[in-house]
Amino acid sequence: MIRNIIEPALAHMTWKVGNVTTPLGFKAFGTASGILKGRPDMALIWSVKPAVVSGLFTTNTAKAWPVLLTQKTVYHGLCQAVIINAGNANAATGPQGEKDAALMQERTARGLNIPPSFVAVASTGVIGVPLPMDKIDQGIHQLLEQWEQHRDCDGKAASEAILTTDQVPKVLAAEVTLPEGTVHMGLMAKGSGMIHPNMATMLAFVTTDAVIDKELQDHLLRQAVDRSFHRISVDGDPSTNDMVLMMANGFSRVAIETPESIKLFQSALTHLLRQGARMIADDGEGATHLITCHVKGAPSEEDAAQKARVVVRSNLVKAAIYGQDPNWGRILAAIGTTPGAFDPDQVAIRMGRLTLFDHGLPTSFDENEAKDIMGQHEVVIEVDLHNGSYEAEAWGCDLTERYVEINAHYRT
Amino acid sequence: MIRNIIEPALAHMTWKVGNVTTPLGFKAFGTASGILKGRPDMALIWSVKPAVVSGLFTTNTAKAWPVLLTQKTVYHGLCQAVIINAGNANAATGPQGEKDAALMQERTARGLNIPPSFVAVASTGVIGVPLPMDKIDQGIHQLLEQWEQHRDCDGKAASEAILTTDQVPKVLAAEVTLPEGTVHMGLMAKGSGMIHPNMATMLAFVTTDAVIDKELQDHLLRQAVDRSFHRISVDGDPSTNDMVLMMANGFSRVAIETPESIKLFQSALTHLLRQGARMIADDGEGATHLITCHVKGAPSEEDAAQKARVVVRSNLVKAAIYGQDPNWGRILAAIGTTPGAFDPDQVAIRMGRLTLFDHGLPTSFDENEAKDIMGQHEVVIEVDLHNGSYEAEAWGCDLTERYVEINAHYRT
Repeated sequence: MIRNIIEPALAHMTWKVGNVTTPLGFKAFGTASGILKGRPDMALIWSVKPAVVSGLFTTNTAKAWPVLLTQKTVYHGLCQAVIINAGNANAATGPQGEKDAALMQERTARGLNIPPSFVAVASTGVIGVPLPMDKIDQGIHQLLEQWEQHRDCDGKAASEAILTTDQVPKVLAAEVTLPEGTVHMGLMAKGSGMIHPNMATMLAFVTTDAVIDKELQDHLLRQAVDRSFHRISVDGDPSTNDMVLMMANGFSRVAIETPESIKLFQSALTHLLRQGARMIADDGEGATHLITCHVKGAPSEEDAAQKARVVVRSNLVKAAIYGQDPNWGRILAAIGTTPGAFDPDQVAIRMGRLTLFDHGLPTSFDENEAKDIMGQHEVVIEVDLHNGSYEAEAWGCDLTERYVEINAHYRT
Repeated sequence: MIRNIIEPALAHMTWKVGNVTTPLGFKAFGTASGILKGRPDMALIWSVKPAVVSGLFTTNTAKAWPVLLTQKTVYHGLCQAVIINAGNANAATGPQGEKDAALMQERTARGLNIPPSFVAVASTGVIGVPLPMDKIDQGIHQLLEQWEQHRDCDGKAASEAILTTDQVPKVLAAEVTLPEGTVHMGLMAKGSGMIHPNMATMLAFVTTDAVIDKELQDHLLRQAVDRSFHRISVDGDPSTNDMVLMMANGFSRVAIETPESIKLFQSALTHLLRQGARMIADDGEGATHLITCHVKGAPSEEDAAQKARVVVRSNLVKAAIYGQDPNWGRILAAIGTTPGAFDPDQVAIRMGRLTLFDHGLPTSFDENEAKDIMGQHEVVIEVDLHNGSYEAEAWGCDLTERYVEINAHYRT
């Protein structure tokens, strides 16, 4: 579903109704294994031929077993399938968890008749509970049946099967025009959600039919994630299971090699992931507003990004936006907590078209206009430090009573 | 008021019912100037003779004018009075704010007949609004009248006049027995509160009648604050106005000079400030639980402190405690986000007497016992990293719908 928060495509790209199966040679399946009662909870992404794979993983010291396993696949560089389950994170599950993740990989590989190392594994859900392997086996069996019969392979079921407390599936697809020809990119992701006793895990899977070298893809993915998924905050805690995987199967026969096509591919990839990041922030638990913070006039992009992130992460800012309060004081205080120095007397703070604070002093703005701006679904905070020429954006959501309710009272 | 969260005194100290006026030679006054309608909002602390002053100030880049002014007094090293107002932070108020802070200092100094540099100034409240100088003048006038007539100088009115959204005044006093004789320490503080459009400012004022060298006091105060006020988190945002001031007027004639008395004085000061920190955390906005996180088995105290802080700061942990959910998964995930490495398979997590997680695996604990522990006002989380011999504690409060309500909907 393309929501109204999706920005227009760049000049050399076109949004498509689609998902990870939009690029040529990718299929994706979803099924209900029984881990989550009465809803789809396992997915399989399949590439007709081995794809070049890149990945970024949680920085949390307590990494889940599927993360540790999939890091090896990414290190080896080739991947033909991804097996994913929701409802159980397979984290903090001891030596049994390591075996179970390996079994998920092996059984999927055997069914698909590919080497185990070609199968990436991802999990999300409750931590500290052993994987229910009978259900996992059943789910893999069902997915392989669909795969054999080419049933439900349009990616719709898959994109639903990876969700936890997400309200909506997060999928995107685009066609990208390069001098050498046309390539496609697809995305499916989940975020937002937390099921007892765990935290919001973010999973994102990116596919492309471009021909691309592993090293270059590693580099482009990192850059794109730095400007997208690394710029969102729902509650600030990186999970044990966070993972972004990108697979390029080369089906389009269009190679990303010249400086021109690298540049165009890169900007399209960043734009795609940026929209994915916005969708995840927008679907934060209990959220009623998408918050975009745009910091400019910074001495470096990293300084701008740090300040933008701290604003969308601040409970006080988040609660103010929920209360439709154009509270520039909390924004100023939030950026003041970052290490990068600036002169408060040079700072301007805007919300939408309204300047709230300028050169160290609050302005007298029109309360009706403020009301109108704060009533929009997306609230754009602009901070101009007047201290350089770099800028960055970050995305978050407001803090509501509903967030507390979900996270205090949802127990299984 | 000494609440039930106050821990027993150390062997060489005795808790006293009192405040900053308990040490000899200190008086404190409070009055209603009209900044906050119908309640006390200005306070004066007075030392009969100039006191050695030390201070720690917010690290926020956007510092309020009274912070910048009082830093100079602390730098010069002597202070005889502190003038404090609530309801207006005098932050982000431009050049006028600088003049106003200086006027507060000068007028107080003139009335007391002491040099302006002997007067520290502190403010808390709304930011971006000029100080209402007519009311400030009126307040100073009333305080000076009380001072001349020795009225209401027992510190009770002062401790109430510095509050914002705090539910209770935070005062403590202790008598400390040293080989050379007896000295006293007193504290008054405010935290918790935020008034539109601002953030939770923490102010703390410590008095003692000990004889102490400026350099030594600077050092002891920093150490004590590192283990107390730097270990609390209500919503994670250091304010523009945070300030801890300590004044020693030497009235007891007992000098803190020998290694033995330095050690005893230091442990008492740390213990006093630690209780103050616990009171502030306990009175966090909307809080229903005091959360103590005790990290042990760490390779350094700083690593233990960082991990303890991240636990009490985590929205997910805070919401779980509110929901009385012994959610060790969120605690493990929280400590995993800190830079200091550890082996999750060595970690133990306890709440009260219950072990929830041990050596990488969850335990099967008694749900009734868990219910009992989570029902207590103070919830103690213990994390043992089994990775060294250092430990640290941090304090916070739970995240409730009421917190969101206060911070989203309170507007002036």
